[in-house]
Amino acid sequence: MNKPEKPKLPKFSVSPPRGMRDILPEEARIRDFAIFKILETYRKYGFGRVETPALENISLLLNSESGENEKLIFKVLKRGEKLELSSETKQIDDLVDLGLRFDLTVPLVRYYAANRHELPKVFKSLQIGPVWRAERPQRGRFRQFTQCDIDIIGVESELAEIELLLATSEALNQLGFKQFVIRFNDRRILTKWVEQCGFLPEQFDNVFIILDKLDKIGVEGVRDELENHGYVKTTVANIFENISGFLAANGDFSIIKSNLPTEVEEGLYQAVERVIHTVRSQAAGRYTIVFDPTLVRGMSYYTGPIFEVEYRDYPFSIAGGGRYDRMVGKLTGVETPACGFSIGFERIITILREEAFAVETALERLVILITPQDALADVFAVMNDFQSRGLATSIFYQKKKLKKQLNDLAMEGYQHFCLFKADEPQQTVEILESQQE
Amino acid sequence: MNKPEKPKLPKFSVSPPRGMRDILPEEARIRDFAIFKILETYRKYGFGRVETPALENISLLLNSESGENEKLIFKVLKRGEKLELSSETKQIDDLVDLGLRFDLTVPLVRYYAANRHELPKVFKSLQIGPVWRAERPQRGRFRQFTQCDIDIIGVESELAEIELLLATSEALNQLGFKQFVIRFNDRRILTKWVEQCGFLPEQFDNVFIILDKLDKIGVEGVRDELENHGYVKTTVANIFENISGFLAANGDFSIIKSNLPTEVEEGLYQAVERVIHTVRSQAAGRYTIVFDPTLVRGMSYYTGPIFEVEYRDYPFSIAGGGRYDRMVGKLTGVETPACGFSIGFERIITILREEAFAVETALERLVILITPQDALADVFAVMNDFQSRGLATSIFYQKKKLKKQLNDLAMEGYQHFCLFKADEPQQTVEILESQQE
Repeated sequence: MNKPEKPKLPKFSVSPPRGMRDILPEEARIRDFAIFKILETYRKYGFGRVETPALENISLLLNSESGENEKLIFKVLKRGEKLELSSETKQIDDLVDLGLRFDLTVPLVRYYAANRHELPKVFKSLQIGPVWRAERPQRGRFRQFTQCDIDIIGVESELAEIELLLATSEALNQLGFKQFVIRFNDRRILTKWVEQCGFLPEQFDNVFIILDKLDKIGVEGVRDELENHGYVKTTVANIFENISGFLAANGDFSIIKSNLPTEVEEGLYQAVERVIHTVRSQAAGRYTIVFDPTLVRGMSYYTGPIFEVEYRDYPFSIAGGGRYDRMVGKLTGVETPACGFSIGFERIITILREEAFAVETALERLVILITPQDALADVFAVMNDFQSRGLATSIFYQKKKLKKQLNDLAMEGYQHFCLFKADEPQQTVEILESQQE
Repeated sequence: MNKPEKPKLPKFSVSPPRGMRDILPEEARIRDFAIFKILETYRKYGFGRVETPALENISLLLNSESGENEKLIFKVLKRGEKLELSSETKQIDDLVDLGLRFDLTVPLVRYYAANRHELPKVFKSLQIGPVWRAERPQRGRFRQFTQCDIDIIGVESELAEIELLLATSEALNQLGFKQFVIRFNDRRILTKWVEQCGFLPEQFDNVFIILDKLDKIGVEGVRDELENHGYVKTTVANIFENISGFLAANGDFSIIKSNLPTEVEEGLYQAVERVIHTVRSQAAGRYTIVFDPTLVRGMSYYTGPIFEVEYRDYPFSIAGGGRYDRMVGKLTGVETPACGFSIGFERIITILREEAFAVETALERLVILITPQDALADVFAVMNDFQSRGLATSIFYQKKKLKKQLNDLAMEGYQHFCLFKADEPQQTVEILESQQE
């Protein structure tokens, strides 16, 4: 028998690509558990799972209302004859026809536009899948990560927001998250408020970016940044006074409302009250919902209610969403209301692991040790028996140094061991006690 | 309230990218069911799930032993400063640093090489995930599709093949597949046989490609193609005679063996017999295993046993795999035996849908119809009650034309309907009979 020569090592690294990661079996089990629980809960609320390809045509990704993400898109080279490299200066457009999706909302709207004639009038969608963003890698932020979204397309009323909030809260509860806080706001109120304080429409976007930092830099920090931007002093003073009042009100909408603009769309405040009241009554103390007129959220496509979930002192929200009533119409030509809520899947997995939540335990693991003389048909019959008793079972050949072998296997996480005994048919295995002391 | 202007349609298509597809909720439910059953079965055999990123460094993909797939790789453009488009003629290497994985085996070997110090000596891996191939789109063949692999790294003996074959057969049984046929061969026997017939080593690859068509073109077709290639007549006559003998033996290894080379590695035939005997005894008539010395399988990285699963008259295998003992060593510098088995996930989903297998039924769907006067806290309490009885529940506002609304909802797949009755506290809902007749 030819002994193969010692293999030569290749000249490239075996690490995953920069900013991406391998998931080991222990984490994969927690992820599967979480996905199972989320699917189960969302399905009871009438959501049906949809899947879209990881790749989308680059024109869709660049023309969506989240175009601010353009720099973050992984772009895919054209193939075969369509790719012409010979001519002189190239534009990216000449080289690229596809891109990896950077969120699940843009693909969903495209999916709805393509398949709407086969979908119900009120379409309740559930998506779990990876997205890709070429962000600067940093601790806890990856270039491929999983998102978990529910969306309701076709409902104009606040029933959509309430269902999304209740379904997501229930899913978080099922995963073991308790006493989280839902922050709720409406872009129309936010805009009107900032306008009433004295800011001009062209200043709104920048003011929103600064307001969004309130969590991190505090109310004084927001005032300083606004003043440094050179906004009119009285305008900044107005907003500062309002925010202080909001904070003192502690999420109580009836108090906060007295500081909010009165000239808003008819029924807007009643709708907010209806959402908060209904969600609070269903929460029954398991979680909280507060009105937060300073909540902004990043995406520019939101048109109405926006919301986020905070958990304990974690410095990030674990879920967020809102209403985006204009996006579907841009791909279908028909105005269609839409609203979505996304769980930050990687974040909840991080918390589940850090806090050692009571995740459905893995199967106990058993090893059957055999010798080359054993009849494999008998060995595998014994394996089936253990499997039917709920044990994850592996079969290995016994080594000369049995004690060392058992120790090594115990170190690798096997809890049970047995020696197969061919010559004693009544007792085909001898259970050894764990070697792990 | 401003009526928004009618949206302008964009200039691009809303279809998924060429050769890729959207998955509708009905199919997604079958896919989730299949994944759940497969995970459950494989975990009992001691396999643990691993996940790798969809993207790999392009050097890994181009240097793997499946380099024949190079043209099929979706390549990703470098980003930011690393991408230089200004200079003259471009090479693909200057533009690209990443690629989408085209199978799960190459990433697994890279994963093992990167993480082996945290993994057990015998590593039993389970992977389910999408892969991408820029193949010419054709019916039933997509450019993104899901694979489902188990692999055992670190086992030299045929115990690995047996575990892979039994676990996969059990998973197929659990999904409802019965009476499938496992075809089993060994690359070392195949090579020796072709050599003994008179072919030269440099002819093997081409002969294998022709042999692999036996299913489609029959034994006469194989002979014709070999003759057209100009191979020595007696050599072609030898192989033709052997194949006819094999076919007559009907998968019976003891008969086939008499036509096979005698000068093979010591113990090789005993190992084959051991695999076939053990798997057959465990199958207990639920499925079949036959020895097929003409089985080739595409990938050049196989070094020993190879196997495929056929189901009824479907013109494709539903699972396939084999031993690849050299691949891990090329990335780690340490010879490490490895063996894997892959279920063609899209193919089994196609069959499950075509044959209307008894897939775990979807939840029954119920609609609660309400009016704007109803107290939502009470409505959602009723929803919770239905959910706890196992119904997927949605809430809609009642329309003026109730009968039409109910008909439309029945068409969309809702089975149960009720009207919320706020004024009759003892009986909060009135169940309507289904309108679908």
